[in-house]
Amino acid sequence: MQSIRNLTGKRNTAILLIHCPDKQGILAAVTEFLNKNQGNIIYLDQHVDREEGLFYMRVEWELEKFAIPREKIADYFETLIAHKFVITFSLHFSDRRPRMALFVSKMSHCLFDILSRYTAGDWETEIPLIISNHDTLRPVAVRFGIDFHLIEKNSTNKGDQELKEIEILEQYNIDFVVLARYMQVLSDQFVTHYPNRIINIHHSFLPAFAGAKPYHAAHERGVKIIGATSHYVTADLDAGPIITQDVVRISHIDNVESLIRKGRDLEKIVLSEAVYKHLQRKILVYNNRTVVFN
Amino acid sequence: MQSIRNLTGKRNTAILLIHCPDKQGILAAVTEFLNKNQGNIIYLDQHVDREEGLFYMRVEWELEKFAIPREKIADYFETLIAHKFVITFSLHFSDRRPRMALFVSKMSHCLFDILSRYTAGDWETEIPLIISNHDTLRPVAVRFGIDFHLIEKNSTNKGDQELKEIEILEQYNIDFVVLARYMQVLSDQFVTHYPNRIINIHHSFLPAFAGAKPYHAAHERGVKIIGATSHYVTADLDAGPIITQDVVRISHIDNVESLIRKGRDLEKIVLSEAVYKHLQRKILVYNNRTVVFN
Amino acid sequence: MQSIRNLTGKRNTAILLIHCPDKQGILAAVTEFLNKNQGNIIYLDQHVDREEGLFYMRVEWELEKFAIPREKIADYFETLIAHKFVITFSLHFSDRRPRMALFVSKMSHCLFDILSRYTAGDWETEIPLIISNHDTLRPVAVRFGIDFHLIEKNSTNKGDQELKEIEILEQYNIDFVVLARYMQVLSDQFVTHYPNRIINIHHSFLPAFAGAKPYHAAHERGVKIIGATSHYVTADLDAGPIITQDVVRISHIDNVESLIRKGRDLEKIVLSEAVYKHLQRKILVYNNRTVVFN
Amino acid sequence: MQSIRNLTGKRNTAILLIHCPDKQGILAAVTEFLNKNQGNIIYLDQHVDREEGLFYMRVEWELEKFAIPREKIADYFETLIAHKFVITFSLHFSDRRPRMALFVSKMSHCLFDILSRYTAGDWETEIPLIISNHDTLRPVAVRFGIDFHLIEKNSTNKGDQELKEIEILEQYNIDFVVLARYMQVLSDQFVTHYPNRIINIHHSFLPAFAGAKPYHAAHERGVKIIGATSHYVTADLDAGPIITQDVVRISHIDNVESLIRKGRDLEKIVLSEAVYKHLQRKILVYNNRTVVFN
Repeated sequence: MQSIRNLTGKRNTAILLIHCPDKQGILAAVTEFLNKNQGNIIYLDQHVDREEGLFYMRVEWELEKFAIPREKIADYFETLIAHKFVITFSLHFSDRRPRMALFVSKMSHCLFDILSRYTAGDWETEIPLIISNHDTLRPVAVRFGIDFHLIEKNSTNKGDQELKEIEILEQYNIDFVVLARYMQVLSDQFVTHYPNRIINIHHSFLPAFAGAKPYHAAHERGVKIIGATSHYVTADLDAGPIITQDVVRISHIDNVESLIRKGRDLEKIVLSEAVYKHLQRKILVYNNRTVVFN
Repeated sequence: MQSIRNLTGKRNTAILLIHCPDKQGILAAVTEFLNKNQGNIIYLDQHVDREEGLFYMRVEWELEKFAIPREKIADYFETLIAHKFVITFSLHFSDRRPRMALFVSKMSHCLFDILSRYTAGDWETEIPLIISNHDTLRPVAVRFGIDFHLIEKNSTNKGDQELKEIEILEQYNIDFVVLARYMQVLSDQFVTHYPNRIINIHHSFLPAFAGAKPYHAAHERGVKIIGATSHYVTADLDAGPIITQDVVRISHIDNVESLIRKGRDLEKIVLSEAVYKHLQRKILVYNNRTVVFN
Repeated sequence: MQSIRNLTGKRNTAILLIHCPDKQGILAAVTEFLNKNQGNIIYLDQHVDREEGLFYMRVEWELEKFAIPREKIADYFETLIAHKFVITFSLHFSDRRPRMALFVSKMSHCLFDILSRYTAGDWETEIPLIISNHDTLRPVAVRFGIDFHLIEKNSTNKGDQELKEIEILEQYNIDFVVLARYMQVLSDQFVTHYPNRIINIHHSFLPAFAGAKPYHAAHERGVKIIGATSHYVTADLDAGPIITQDVVRISHIDNVESLIRKGRDLEKIVLSEAVYKHLQRKILVYNNRTVVFN
Repeated sequence: MQSIRNLTGKRNTAILLIHCPDKQGILAAVTEFLNKNQGNIIYLDQHVDREEGLFYMRVEWELEKFAIPREKIADYFETLIAHKFVITFSLHFSDRRPRMALFVSKMSHCLFDILSRYTAGDWETEIPLIISNHDTLRPVAVRFGIDFHLIEKNSTNKGDQELKEIEILEQYNIDFVVLARYMQVLSDQFVTHYPNRIINIHHSFLPAFAGAKPYHAAHERGVKIIGATSHYVTADLDAGPIITQDVVRISHIDNVESLIRKGRDLEKIVLSEAVYKHLQRKILVYNNRTVVFN
């Protein structure tokens, strides 16, 4: 299905994500670098973690009149600024749409939510690929015109199947992976291929109720609020850097079934918000935590 | 697209919605009526509005061993109980799935949200019909296999076109209408055909910012929270009985465009929650307000 | 300081809290018992936990014309109703104001919040006693005209000091204890003296971050929402039945100091809400969970 | 009552609040000005309103090694930076504690909330003065050791009484006024004396239910969420720049009395949050809206 809404003619911009030890003059140096070279800044946000002495920044500027050719920006920035301040940075261009792969199992709510935003043209991304360990959601992929690969896993073939998945991801030039209620734990081997590039949704307010069956555990414990958590996947299960969380009130009236029903709405909104922030390059990861710019 | 999830074999139940002047003994009389006739109560909630002296109740019971045949329940209840307590009631059966028509314009987020719940089998409803004043969303209807009727309106043909809509609604045996960001005001003539059976989503926290362009108005006023409101449509624009509302925090950083983006998530969740409550027959309307049972 | 607001002349009522195995006819039997004896019901709420087959109910009625003398109600109810349905119940009278003791340490925000509600006449309670393991908040107690007992504790004298506390609580005829950020763990021996009668506030969204320094732990984990939890104290630290919870969004901008600042507002509101519900006899505890009626 | 908590030895800092037409180089110019003169920046946040072409900034730096004497900072900044960029700015010093006057009527919850934060040492402010149109809350003022002035008003003496209030405010060197549920409308004459220096709490989610009896109006309209709004007072009643808002869910179960009870908690938290932001000099007002920095 083609995008329903035509994307408005966006201006070409460059985005710089920076972190480094905090020091006087970084902000002035970066903004001066852009100003001097006719880079019109359209977004700037920065954060200083004073306890750890770290400086974080996201700056976006128009390329139209920028004096430095786009292929040389990284080089110039490294030489003129980053080197001096020991800056770690990544550079992105708004006209380069990241390519997303979706991993799903049997539940459709997150998948539908992502595909409807994609179809509506809300997101600057391409979604060429859905991988699943069940055939249940193939019809959805077909209706939305997206390639669907069934890769079943069991305890003996998991390693091989993951190698196959990595191969497919490479064929499709995938930039990042979204686990849309994918009910299989990925191995360390798989995860380390995509550092800070696999986004998961966990159906609890982490760190409460990590692991399996969080709604059952929440009901058993008698909590009055349930939540959902999106995070980057790391080798530690459910312990990666948290991107977004949201919660909803429940009461003694709720049983596990109604928690699952209410949780679905949380999960899809929280996951999609994380994907949106990732697509906007508004997330910086450091020390297993995230800076998520507004 | 067929429902992905098989519906669990639900038990046949009857649902009684009641309101009447408050008086000693109503609750005892109703529960005794059901108990005596072997109606196993699986849900009971009641509310007394002490200021207005009104009693509201929703009770649901299993039909399997119920002594009174389903076609005679209304008659018996009227004679034995309702008459005495001056009760207004409606009786519903859980195996009767209400038929919904969707009215849409150009925005797809509420439509997708409803269709994905429907496709997933989350809701006990049939959606045979989508009506729109634009052709934009026809492809969505096609993909989900639902009939789509384009009924364009302008200031001169509105009355005639509404008559055509009513005719189509009747052909499809529609029970209730959901306005999923339908950007046309319905006439009183249309509205009175479907009392408490047209659900609208308004993109503000009513009664603030009724009417057109609420996000622009919210931005102009400088509020720090925006909202969405689902309500039954009445002759008074945006003044019908409120079913559900939700809000999200915003800040000076947000512009109208980001309000619209954040609002979309509110709108779809709030509208779908209202539809869910309506389908569950958990809403009673009285004095332009709703009782929404848990 | 005398109560600022005069309490409106409240009607004398009786409150019955019930739980028992679910069975047809309980609700009808209880309401019929009250109706027949001219007990005008002014509040009724009930809940059936269908998984565990349990029935919970709170009913409140006016005593004025009630045919059974108040000192015989428990006996009659036991004989005529409770026995038949194997009901566990407690009976309360609205003109009997429970007596609360406050345990505090050095932080004043929960103490002030409780005392200001008390002084304003918002709560039907008496607060004759504050116990603390530090002398810091004595001036607050003095200003509000409440007895203050300093009972310092260390690892060797804890048992003795708790015995002293119990003695004082008995002297003051205390019905229940509120730990308003009291920074000492109570022993099992103490806790078992007051089953479901000690309310604590924990400064995290339990079960996440139980134990000491939850704000530090929350910051370390990088969560995007923090919470507070009020619960009845049991022998298991931070594991008692949860009464109320609330949360607030945070971001990478927050450091531990700002979490502590934001948490204070959560803690005081959540604790006071729990105390309010307790005073209203709207809480039923079963299987380490609570039913909290509206 | 003296402050319970000793304030930690805060460093002396200067705070600059800036707004001006957006233009390349402002941020670089300001940060360079501070860096060159050994002003160690400990907080910087800025915002560009691209629709209106406006630049907003708050920057805070340590004075210890700052090369420019504090009494000359404003002059230097005006000459060297502000003039060039047509900047409107205000300069504040963290060791200058603003002096607050409280206006109250009969309700105590906001008053208690503010005084308990003050007493706990949470806020960098002095509160030497409470003014009221009723004598009800005098005992609270006495207990907290704050001067209390009764200034009764009626339709004929209002103008004179306001002149008396202004006189008292000047005697006490008051910097800003907090209306803590003060139930009298202030005249334009009074308001214009204190532009953006009178903070009010309105007990509704503005702009819904402006004016008198908002909880009654909310109940009448049947909303499912109620709110509270803090704002700077302007000549237009309840229409001044909004600082903070918060909401709480309600249901058909709530009557006006329970709305008022739930609203009290909202009101006090929302008002105190606004005062806190004001004290931190984190609020910029422009075009009847606020920029509230984090």
